[in-house]
Amino acid sequence: MTTSNGNRLAPVSLRQVSIDAGFWGERQAVNRDVTIPAIYQKLEETGRIASWAMAGPANPPPSHERIGVRVFWDSDSGKWLESAAYSLATHPDAELEATADALIDAIEGAQFDDGYLNTYFPVHFPEGQWANLRDNHEMYNAGHLMEAAVAYHQATGKRKLLDVLARFSDHIAATFGTEEGKRRGYPGHPEIELALVKMYRETGEKRFLDLASYLVDERGQAPHYYDKESLDRGESPENYWAQTYRYCQAHLPLREHTEANGHSVRACYLYAGIADVALETGDEDLLRLSRVLWDDLTRHQMYVHGGVGPSHHNEGFTFAYDMPTETAYCETCAAIALAFWAHRMFHLDPDSRYIDVMERAIYNSSLSGLSHSGDHFFYANPLAAYPGINPQGRWHEDMDGGHHRRTPWFHCPCCPPNISRLIASIGEYAYSQAGDRIYVQMYQDNSVDLNIGGSEARLVQETQYPWDGSVRITTNMAQNTNFELALRIPDWCYDHQLSVNGEAQMAATERGYLILSREWTDGDKVELTLAMPVERVMPHPSIRQTAGQIALQRGPVLYCLEEVDNGPRLANVCISDAAALHAAFDADLFGGVSVITGEARRIEPAEESSALYRHHSRASYKASEFAFKAVPYYLWANRDRGEMRVWIRSS
Amino acid sequence: MTTSNGNRLAPVSLRQVSIDAGFWGERQAVNRDVTIPAIYQKLEETGRIASWAMAGPANPPPSHERIGVRVFWDSDSGKWLESAAYSLATHPDAELEATADALIDAIEGAQFDDGYLNTYFPVHFPEGQWANLRDNHEMYNAGHLMEAAVAYHQATGKRKLLDVLARFSDHIAATFGTEEGKRRGYPGHPEIELALVKMYRETGEKRFLDLASYLVDERGQAPHYYDKESLDRGESPENYWAQTYRYCQAHLPLREHTEANGHSVRACYLYAGIADVALETGDEDLLRLSRVLWDDLTRHQMYVHGGVGPSHHNEGFTFAYDMPTETAYCETCAAIALAFWAHRMFHLDPDSRYIDVMERAIYNSSLSGLSHSGDHFFYANPLAAYPGINPQGRWHEDMDGGHHRRTPWFHCPCCPPNISRLIASIGEYAYSQAGDRIYVQMYQDNSVDLNIGGSEARLVQETQYPWDGSVRITTNMAQNTNFELALRIPDWCYDHQLSVNGEAQMAATERGYLILSREWTDGDKVELTLAMPVERVMPHPSIRQTAGQIALQRGPVLYCLEEVDNGPRLANVCISDAAALHAAFDADLFGGVSVITGEARRIEPAEESSALYRHHSRASYKASEFAFKAVPYYLWANRDRGEMRVWIRSS
Repeated sequence: MTTSNGNRLAPVSLRQVSIDAGFWGERQAVNRDVTIPAIYQKLEETGRIASWAMAGPANPPPSHERIGVRVFWDSDSGKWLESAAYSLATHPDAELEATADALIDAIEGAQFDDGYLNTYFPVHFPEGQWANLRDNHEMYNAGHLMEAAVAYHQATGKRKLLDVLARFSDHIAATFGTEEGKRRGYPGHPEIELALVKMYRETGEKRFLDLASYLVDERGQAPHYYDKESLDRGESPENYWAQTYRYCQAHLPLREHTEANGHSVRACYLYAGIADVALETGDEDLLRLSRVLWDDLTRHQMYVHGGVGPSHHNEGFTFAYDMPTETAYCETCAAIALAFWAHRMFHLDPDSRYIDVMERAIYNSSLSGLSHSGDHFFYANPLAAYPGINPQGRWHEDMDGGHHRRTPWFHCPCCPPNISRLIASIGEYAYSQAGDRIYVQMYQDNSVDLNIGGSEARLVQETQYPWDGSVRITTNMAQNTNFELALRIPDWCYDHQLSVNGEAQMAATERGYLILSREWTDGDKVELTLAMPVERVMPHPSIRQTAGQIALQRGPVLYCLEEVDNGPRLANVCISDAAALHAAFDADLFGGVSVITGEARRIEPAEESSALYRHHSRASYKASEFAFKAVPYYLWANRDRGEMRVWIRSS
Repeated sequence: MTTSNGNRLAPVSLRQVSIDAGFWGERQAVNRDVTIPAIYQKLEETGRIASWAMAGPANPPPSHERIGVRVFWDSDSGKWLESAAYSLATHPDAELEATADALIDAIEGAQFDDGYLNTYFPVHFPEGQWANLRDNHEMYNAGHLMEAAVAYHQATGKRKLLDVLARFSDHIAATFGTEEGKRRGYPGHPEIELALVKMYRETGEKRFLDLASYLVDERGQAPHYYDKESLDRGESPENYWAQTYRYCQAHLPLREHTEANGHSVRACYLYAGIADVALETGDEDLLRLSRVLWDDLTRHQMYVHGGVGPSHHNEGFTFAYDMPTETAYCETCAAIALAFWAHRMFHLDPDSRYIDVMERAIYNSSLSGLSHSGDHFFYANPLAAYPGINPQGRWHEDMDGGHHRRTPWFHCPCCPPNISRLIASIGEYAYSQAGDRIYVQMYQDNSVDLNIGGSEARLVQETQYPWDGSVRITTNMAQNTNFELALRIPDWCYDHQLSVNGEAQMAATERGYLILSREWTDGDKVELTLAMPVERVMPHPSIRQTAGQIALQRGPVLYCLEEVDNGPRLANVCISDAAALHAAFDADLFGGVSVITGEARRIEPAEESSALYRHHSRASYKASEFAFKAVPYYLWANRDRGEMRVWIRSS
């Protein structure tokens, strides 16, 4: 996308953004000190690191031991490497780099002469190579390794992994495509599409973009490739375990899609890839498709915490306005993938509404995937919880399983390195630039080094965001420079004040941004105050599960009630429309967070009874007032086990 | 159970009760004219009738075509025969009897010399005979055929089927038991226990009771029989598909159970069988167990419509106070089995509280299993519905599947003949007798012929129950007779008036019954008026899913709102605590039913918006008053497709 002044709009690289304090400074420190090492330790303990040395042409014979979950393994190494790379880009660490280099050497050693790279199939199931694109994740693994390769090249300048993945990409392009003799395959789990566009941007080599375009265009075409490959395996396509190609967004050619469908992580990675291809090719039809899917998802299928995919059954989407709370799946990876897609949508169609969704997904349904300690993870992110109770019922006797308590690892551990790489790369989401326009997207305590038409400028941003709406940006530059500062006014903010060097400013608004255009001098101070009152969120009247309930939000942060603060039976708690709601900074809670307090009522029968059902003509309710305390949703389940609710009855 | 006067308490046989009009007269006519023929037609169409002629010693060789669902088939024939027998007992029908006789001949022909009887294993899987009691339903089928045999013998005096099943029972007793050389097996799906007690009562032969007692005592003992038979099949017990023997109430010896557990149909049939064994053996420990399980189920795990088993996953129980509405399973068979159990509990422990639950289950979660037309059936009976929406999500693209619309048949059609046999035998639930005490249990328009200490007496009951609480009972007898009339005061009734021959009576109450003891003369008129206002039902404060909501009940009948009467978005409908609620008889609706009307408010945002979430500071609600109409829950989904809700927000 180019802006009216002809300059390409792009994120400002995280390598230009220094984050050392504030909300994200703290989160990044925990990520470096705890999360990245903890995940690497799990990769080692589970054999994932060793699997690279056991694969490859130098290591016959194959064991033929077939283990389903191993088909995902390579992606876990990829995502960890990517997270390590982002961290190295801003916080060099020789030991971490040496660990990464050793892993990259092992990966290189596992590559076959024809470019094929995978730790599972050559060792365990050679005849399965490329035999089941629908289920087997070979391209998904390739995509994650490509993202790692690009990030590592950017962070360290080392191109070994980039070259490995370029060869693997060439192998894929030689195997799959529309040309005579190639198979018309595409991945059951999309992800490689966006990764190939990253490869293209990093290398400038158009063959990567062409492969991404092919994968987008071929998806869902008739005759259906997954039917064909099933028959080739001697399986009936009707016996597809997922029942429908909607599950993998392949039920129709992509350009005919009108709704977000199926497995929500697959969907959002795919949609991000489509936006990337549209960005690079200028394909207007893909832009139209992206907007249609975006509007469907954000108007019909997005939870208030930015989570997507209510159903455990397909790990994905169901239908418009279906928002179960306690049983919500809302995989951590899906929220992260939605943030990725949102970020791309902004660059395709520069409007703050995309960044609003990105921020909602990051601060709430993504961050909740990680414990405050940094070494426990959620896979699902429900909007209500009754621990000791599995939402699937006592039937599944494993009461926790990462649903009510975070856990150090998963059988399929896609979420832990995903939240780690998001945090390590959070600087990438702070600014975008198009020529002499600088977009300030996610407010955070940082500084950014910019090149604006050849001039160097540093902006120093000071803020307690998201706990406070005051942001101060100070310029630091050798010479006066003309540029536009586009300051995002979030969708939750109805009142703001802006000054430059203490002088109030009236700035024009353009698609959700205040545009401050002037010649800037070293030491100029921009002060923006975003009013951040506590808001009661009303759900759409077609959402049946939360009718008559409100959620509490302040700034981009969604809140919840936990039993540890508010006692049990949270379903009986009511917050009156008239109740005053207060935000207070609690310096002792999780190193300092804002909490929300106010008066609530617990409405319960006036007299205890063992009866399941009583008649209102013979029994009455009493309302007990109490001072409630709501904490940020993303921090739930970091203290005592207990109930949690986002949506609270209102009256 | 014997009462204080030493006379055994027992139901008055349905053969003594004539029902020709009123609520049940109409339901029985539809059952005879539509339901019984429709089910027989399905048994024929699906090959179930023909399967008897293809089984048996005269019909080798086996086909070895293994089809899982066929293991249940014999029970479908059994339940249809049982329903036909009840109908023949009160409404003779030569054609129906000839059809039943022919089926019984075929069943007899399928029996092997050693007594074994099953249409599946000998033909399709001979080596599977008795090899998997946990899963394979051979005893379950036997039990349903025994119930049919007893009913048919009672109805027609013909004992062919009774003799067939006695031989089958003897085969089972020769194969399973604690004696040397026998296997210590018992059925994965209980049902045969209660059937064996019926066999005992009908024949007086104690060996049937002994077999029932053995099956109750052996269940869940260690070493576990299902572990052993799994290993004998070469399967690891850990690979049990249902994960836990809780599923089939075999995780512990029965006397150690403290909660209703697992698959709810299995549970309630088993508990009914336990009560039957306790009744016949006087085993105090089984009486204690029955009370413990009853109290758990009715205080923690019973829906307001008398349904049990919230979870689709195990078709059964989950945990205390877990009452999801839209996703409630509440199988029709489970409500019927609960009614069976309740009826037995009364005879074990004569208290009206059991009959209250029986009536709740029959009028609501059982009857909802059948369409008004008599030929469509529900398997699940949820408390809220959003048609076009499958509660499992779009994932399962079959939107109906008997969940939102009744269907003519099921892959596993246990429910259709179950509701049919309940309706055909409803007279059995009207009266109980212990010597000269006559309990009037379910009020219904009928007449009953009694023998009281050698004297014949007929009671003629006239009532519009359940639409009206007025009941008139007129005696019809040749000579004056002393007896006690025990008139049940239902748990929903807080005010009643009683008169005999127009004279008001003050009668003593004993465990929920008014006791009228006198010398009765021909033509005496007892008039009982049960006040039947519309009641708002309050859920227990630990039921999180319906907090802040009420259900509407009048007499034993639970009501619901349907979209066809009240428009869509029923989650936004609120009924004020102050709103007057009116009951009115609507003669045009389903042949005449009482409906409930009143003022409700639909609370929705004042201004339409496509936004999923809005802030209350910027948007407001408006309340639109409208006249709502609630219809009996059991009649939902007999008109236009649309939303349905039992639990309505209150304010």
